[in-house]
Amino acid sequence: MERKNHTLHVFRDGRENFGEFKDSSNLLEYINNHTPFSLPAPCAGKGRCGKCRITVSSGEVTPLTEEEKKILSEKEIARGVRLACMTRPLSDIVLVMDGEKAGVGNKSAVITEKMEVHPFLHKDLYTLNGPHLHDQISDHSRMLSVAGTPVRHIPLSVLRQVPGALREGGYTITVCRDGDTALAVEPGDTREQCYGVAVDIGTTTVASYLIDLTTGKNLDVISALNAQEIYGADVISRINHTMTDADGLKKLQEKIIDQIDYMVRILADRNQINRERIYTVVIAGNTTMVHLVLGLPPKNIAAAPFISVTTEALTVPAGGLSLSIAPGGTVYTLPGVSGYVGADIVAAVLASGMAESGPLSLLIDIGTNGEIVLGNRDRLVCCSTAAGPAFEGAQIRNGVGGIAGAVNKVRMQDGIISFTTIQNTRPLGICGSGIVDLLSILIGYHIVEESGRMLSRGEAPEKTPKDLLDGMTTLDGEPAFLLVPEEGTDLGSPILLTQKDVREIQLAKAAIAAGIDTLVKKIGINLEDIEVLYLAGGFGSYLHKASAVAIGLLPWELHDRVHTLGNAAGKGAAMALLSLRAREKCEAIRRKAEYIELSSSPEFQDAYIERMFFSQENTKTHNIF
Amino acid sequence: MERKNHTLHVFRDGRENFGEFKDSSNLLEYINNHTPFSLPAPCAGKGRCGKCRITVSSGEVTPLTEEEKKILSEKEIARGVRLACMTRPLSDIVLVMDGEKAGVGNKSAVITEKMEVHPFLHKDLYTLNGPHLHDQISDHSRMLSVAGTPVRHIPLSVLRQVPGALREGGYTITVCRDGDTALAVEPGDTREQCYGVAVDIGTTTVASYLIDLTTGKNLDVISALNAQEIYGADVISRINHTMTDADGLKKLQEKIIDQIDYMVRILADRNQINRERIYTVVIAGNTTMVHLVLGLPPKNIAAAPFISVTTEALTVPAGGLSLSIAPGGTVYTLPGVSGYVGADIVAAVLASGMAESGPLSLLIDIGTNGEIVLGNRDRLVCCSTAAGPAFEGAQIRNGVGGIAGAVNKVRMQDGIISFTTIQNTRPLGICGSGIVDLLSILIGYHIVEESGRMLSRGEAPEKTPKDLLDGMTTLDGEPAFLLVPEEGTDLGSPILLTQKDVREIQLAKAAIAAGIDTLVKKIGINLEDIEVLYLAGGFGSYLHKASAVAIGLLPWELHDRVHTLGNAAGKGAAMALLSLRAREKCEAIRRKAEYIELSSSPEFQDAYIERMFFSQENTKTHNIF
Repeated sequence: MERKNHTLHVFRDGRENFGEFKDSSNLLEYINNHTPFSLPAPCAGKGRCGKCRITVSSGEVTPLTEEEKKILSEKEIARGVRLACMTRPLSDIVLVMDGEKAGVGNKSAVITEKMEVHPFLHKDLYTLNGPHLHDQISDHSRMLSVAGTPVRHIPLSVLRQVPGALREGGYTITVCRDGDTALAVEPGDTREQCYGVAVDIGTTTVASYLIDLTTGKNLDVISALNAQEIYGADVISRINHTMTDADGLKKLQEKIIDQIDYMVRILADRNQINRERIYTVVIAGNTTMVHLVLGLPPKNIAAAPFISVTTEALTVPAGGLSLSIAPGGTVYTLPGVSGYVGADIVAAVLASGMAESGPLSLLIDIGTNGEIVLGNRDRLVCCSTAAGPAFEGAQIRNGVGGIAGAVNKVRMQDGIISFTTIQNTRPLGICGSGIVDLLSILIGYHIVEESGRMLSRGEAPEKTPKDLLDGMTTLDGEPAFLLVPEEGTDLGSPILLTQKDVREIQLAKAAIAAGIDTLVKKIGINLEDIEVLYLAGGFGSYLHKASAVAIGLLPWELHDRVHTLGNAAGKGAAMALLSLRAREKCEAIRRKAEYIELSSSPEFQDAYIERMFFSQENTKTHNIF
Repeated sequence: MERKNHTLHVFRDGRENFGEFKDSSNLLEYINNHTPFSLPAPCAGKGRCGKCRITVSSGEVTPLTEEEKKILSEKEIARGVRLACMTRPLSDIVLVMDGEKAGVGNKSAVITEKMEVHPFLHKDLYTLNGPHLHDQISDHSRMLSVAGTPVRHIPLSVLRQVPGALREGGYTITVCRDGDTALAVEPGDTREQCYGVAVDIGTTTVASYLIDLTTGKNLDVISALNAQEIYGADVISRINHTMTDADGLKKLQEKIIDQIDYMVRILADRNQINRERIYTVVIAGNTTMVHLVLGLPPKNIAAAPFISVTTEALTVPAGGLSLSIAPGGTVYTLPGVSGYVGADIVAAVLASGMAESGPLSLLIDIGTNGEIVLGNRDRLVCCSTAAGPAFEGAQIRNGVGGIAGAVNKVRMQDGIISFTTIQNTRPLGICGSGIVDLLSILIGYHIVEESGRMLSRGEAPEKTPKDLLDGMTTLDGEPAFLLVPEEGTDLGSPILLTQKDVREIQLAKAAIAAGIDTLVKKIGINLEDIEVLYLAGGFGSYLHKASAVAIGLLPWELHDRVHTLGNAAGKGAAMALLSLRAREKCEAIRRKAEYIELSSSPEFQDAYIERMFFSQENTKTHNIF
């Protein structure tokens, strides 16, 4: 088929990106390689998973394929929905990425809590004497010789701006400095413009917060799927990609750098801020994500003994990472504890305040992995469980992330099963909180046994409500539960929870629960001694506590002490952006934290097997919340 | 005419570069834009100046043009010599750049004097414990926790190498550090491999010295025409290029960086050294050259009050300048004094030792500009004269640099005029030292008057030797002196010294002489009080002192105190590479030096007019030397 270089306009979140369609076999490849956006492709672009839906809003494209006819509903087809992996342009076209739109601002929101401002950046105003034939010292020497200036170092990237700033400002300039090092030299008085960006790089989601460094206010936030997603859903597949492709590390680094750079641009643009007035970017993320953004080889994290290149806090020039902020701007990566307890967890611990308080707290971040921290100001123990991305919808038949149309809540009341979707649109799939809700109901009504086996309709207990009974079906000869019939969705097939899905969740919840048990044992306490259970991360915010306790993901003993933190990693990064003291606290957390390697822990093995079962007892908490 | 993508192999100095001929209208453009080599093109590629001669040693090219037939001799044509600006390939071809070959090792040579070694780089050997499941700290933390290591900072570029080095070396590694910062982490014991490169960037010539940082020995040297030459012969045209072309600064920076990188590669390769064992590059050069290599805008150097962005010594990461040496390698630029007395002069003063001695010395560096320093350990005054590149052969009808075939010596003995050429090949043109020799003879025989007017043959004094009389001719109606008849060269036209050439030299020598007078007056001494006259730079080495005094370029009073330093800037850079104390001395020179701006000096104006004349008296020194 003929391939021409057509111009493509891609819209997402009201933002536009355009370019030429070339070197791409289809729109999926184009979007993932030539725009800052990304589309998931679990089926590797074979037209099977239906997750790369886009809407063609103008222009001509290749005809519908058989694969698309199987997956897309008639209504979708009428609306111009296509699978990006099956589509190529035949003219200049305009695309809208619908699914992504919902991602922005859904999981994350502006931080409203007051954050401590303890600035390490200073902006000073100077008026210098201009040069003449009897005063010919260089611009650089002139800057250093200003009476009383603490500036001793002007990096090359800043020096390049100095002659322009001096002359444009008529020798009145504002210098932004970190200690004795200049980050920017600006014409005129710009002291009121002093910004930074805090970034939480999750394996699945990236969130960036624009912060006013003077007031400490979080002005705006933007979040989106991690653009590296095309290289795999979890940390291990990304690491594998750096090992199997010679340019893999470079490509992964570029993807995330481009995405952060894009987010910084959007944040600056829509808040009418000059991006050169953004002086520092603070990054939190799991250890692999931090390696990838810094271009450090993460290879040794993937195999025992799981060694990272660094878990130290690093400050690097933003220019060296190709981030366009102030010419001498810096990127600060928060410290981590180990290969699997990263800077995001240190940030979350910082945000929770647990490392400074007397009572014992437990912090759980269920994301693509499940990290757990237990302790107080005296001691911190932590571990990471391979919970897998099941709670983020991966490896679940109809699983999706927190996008518009995701079933996020399932209820059973008066014998009637009901659900809601994100943005109340027609259901597209089921996200983590919906899965946990539905499973808790199935356990409560004995349709899923303690062993995790799903009953067939014939085996259903006598008093099973009709609504539940109606849902009991089979898929490929195995029991499954039908939540949304084919006609209730645009998918072209029903939304089901399968036996295999239950097994995935069962493994994941057992890992988390056993991790908690191991830490409790390590520190020599009982679950009851824990005064607060902090739930960090996007999933933690949307999870219904009763359902989580019901399926045994969270301990029954703590059902009344759960405190949701939201994006604690993002908040911690913002705190570190605003305060040197917060950075020192991160350093203290890093030093104090003892990492427990679960893969070599017999206690964990025992607890893992024990926690594999579901207990109907736990479902009674439904009544408490 | 058809343009195909043919493969070109370009040889220079026994080194090869190859690539595809594309985006180029002719071989001149190709060589200047797509290889690290460069060809001069004063006529801007119009086939008129004949300075872009190359030899096609295999393959087919476009036929000879009328322009080439006018300029190339039959012998040259037979040998495959072509003008690059008039030639395009018709097949894969192999080219040899003859003229350039001679440039290497001619003006510069290995430094044989012993240089002080006072190292600031240290290489330490460590053996670490490897990680296991109960010792999972990161490679970075492991490095920092080695007992007794002074290393506190490992830059990102070095960190990237750490996991590989640790594992390849079985946890035995050598760390190269500068203070508490690691420049490299290498597997095994590499303590004996510790190198640096000193570079002197002249406007015309670039010389790079490979130095063993342990022994202090200069192992090798390479020099070539500055690759920026295609953007103009002098500093001002290069600066203009940064102002008229939006990408001009970037292009000029790339040219010189590529050239240095290429030289470093050649030096490493031919001395069987791993270029990752080169840890630092020290750069001397005039202020504009230092700006261009650092990518600093030199605009304000070009116009009054002639302000440079920096004259401070700078240390920048080599990676940031795209120089491939050790991952954490640094580039150190020597400090300068002003826009027109640069780091090359500070280096030359360092090499001369004049700033540490009691007696007064005068240092003159005649290159594309003429810089002069007068003083001792108590006081230094300096200035720069717009001598122009006349002494380097530019703006002289048959002028050439110090290439093979350049007439470098002219003698008059027993009524017979004779000359030698560099490498004793057939004459191609006349270089600075030859011009000064010839002019001194013409002055001595009254063929050039005190005013600089050249006599016509009819006006020749009675006793003019026949050989001289025979040379007296005309060009375009003006007197000229014929040194080599057409049949004596391959040029297709004779080698002449014209009236216009004499005027160029006259202006240049007057500027130098008046600069000396101004400094002498400033410091309040007489010429006779000066104990040594140091001649720095390539031209200074080849200049015949008697001739220089004869034309009034050097003062008669110092004719018996001239000391030739050779490439003093290169030697000074090498000294700064080897010793922190030498760097401190440079700093002291920079601070002590008083720059005298000649453009606003009435003393200079007076002296300039006075020194414009030639004095036959001076030619008598010919008998003294």
